[in-house]
This record gives sequence, C-alpha cells and structure tokens, in this order.
Amino acid sequence: MKRLLLAAATLAGLATTLPAVAQFQKPEDAIEYRQSAMTIQGHHLGRVFAMVNGRVPFDAKLIGEQIDIVAMINRLQFAAFVEGSGKGDTKALPEIWTAKDKWAAAVAKSQEDVQKLAAVGHSGNLEQIKAAAGAVGQSCKACHDTFRAK
Amino acid sequence: MKRLLLAAATLAGLATTLPAVAQFQKPEDAIEYRQSAMTIQGHHLGRVFAMVNGRVPFDAKLIGEQIDIVAMINRLQFAAFVEGSGKGDTKALPEIWTAKDKWAAAVAKSQEDVQKLAAVGHSGNLEQIKAAAGAVGQSCKACHDTFRAK
Repeated sequence: MKRLLLAAATLAGLATTLPAVAQFQKPEDAIEYRQSAMTIQGHHLGRVFAMVNGRVPFDAKLIGEQIDIVAMINRLQFAAFVEGSGKGDTKALPEIWTAKDKWAAAVAKSQEDVQKLAAVGHSGNLEQIKAAAGAVGQSCKACHDTFRAK
Repeated sequence: MKRLLLAAATLAGLATTLPAVAQFQKPEDAIEYRQSAMTIQGHHLGRVFAMVNGRVPFDAKLIGEQIDIVAMINRLQFAAFVEGSGKGDTKALPEIWTAKDKWAAAVAKSQEDVQKLAAVGHSGNLEQIKAAAGAVGQSCKACHDTFRAK
C-alpha cells in the first residue's frame, strides 16, 4: 500500500513539475485537454461517491484504485488553464486569469484535498474516505461556483 | 528510475484490473470518457514525437514524464469501449464489437507497444525512445485505420 501511495505521489508530483510553457500549440487545445481531464476525473470521482454514499457496495480495493486515478488527473488538469485560453468553447471565467491569487489558492485547495483523499484511499476505512471525498467535492464545487460559468 | 517505472507499471496494472461492468451508466458516458482519454494521450504522445523528431529539443526527463502519462491513460481507455457504445457521437466502427478477436489483438498490440515505450522512457536513449515511439504510432494508426471511421 505504501508503495502504491508512493507510486501515485511520484507520478502526481511529476505532472506538476511539467513546464506549462508551450505545452499547448493553440488555446483550443488547452481547453479540450482540461475538459477531457475533468471528464475522466469526474467519472472516477463519481465512482468514489457512489461507494461512499452506498449506491454501490463498498469495495476497499476498487475505491483506492479510483482515487489513485483521480489524484493523477487532478495534477494534470490545472496546467491547461494557460493564458489566452479563456475564450472559445469554455465555461472558464475571466477571474481565473484576472484574480490569479484567488485562483492559485483554489487550485492549491483542490490539490491538497485530493492528496488527503489519496492518503486514505487504500485505508479500507469507509468513514475516513467518505470524509475526505466530501472535502474534495466541496473543493470542486467552490472552484466551479467561482471560476466556471453556469 | 526503477521506482518510477514500477510506479507507472503499478498504476497501469491497476487500471486494467478495473471491472468494466457497470462502469458507465450511459453509452454516451463511455464515448465521452474514451474520447477524453484519447485527447490526453494524444497530447502527451504529441510532445514525445515533437522531441524524437527534433521539433523541440530532446529533454530526457521531460520525455520520460510524458511517456509515463501516455502509459497510464493507454491502460484506462480501452475499458470504455463497452457493449452498446458504438452509436451516437463516435467514430468507433461496429467491427470493435463484431470482430472481437481482431479488436482484442489490436488492443493488446497497443498496450504491448506502449509498455515497451514506457520501459525505455527514462533511459535517456533518444534512438531507443524514437524506435519505440514509432512502433506506438504505427499501433495507433493500424487500430484507427481498422476500427475508426474516417
């Protein structure tokens, strides 16, 4: 389990160190990339919530795997909110680029909460996972409420 | 480096063991998921090809990180070609579900070639990476030629 957490943390860490400069050739590439990441993250997070809310049976191994994927994708997606990618087929609000400190804090909170979830993902402790997943859900919502168009 | 490969392999292995049953509530969820995975994989593979083809300078660390991401996503995406998801906003051809053995072989070839690329991803050996990336590109193309509408 330790190795797995290390594995997830290692890969997650790698992703954040990728230089964002020139990562996307066109703004629409960045938009498509982050929307794709949100789709994948949302899918796996949805499977986590289905288990912590009792809609599907709790499976200690499976939920840990889902959380590992969430953690990896979470680290990739924020690099795609590059300067100039606020127009086009996106719900991203201008505040992402005009209120940079607030945005950075929201990103940091998301990553922190996801890391806390990842830390208990393989614990087999439903209550701990449920609490940590709830915090992640609130982070998602807070960021969407502030930085995403309705 | 060994630990990193192990990390990637561990997470990649996890993904393939996820049960596909009931993973997607609606066929369109599966379609959106696999298209998202292809987008992310394609982005990072594009960065790999940019380096092996000399369009951007070779960076031994960066290319390894890109390849790790490709390997993770590659393992997730094929689970989304679920029965019944061949209609709608998709270029997936019916052969995926009617020629199952051929499809399974194509998936296996893709995963095998991506694993070989991942195995040399952090080698720092441009020629090895270039050869392995070329094989991955051919796997992608072969599968798209056969199982994806023009």
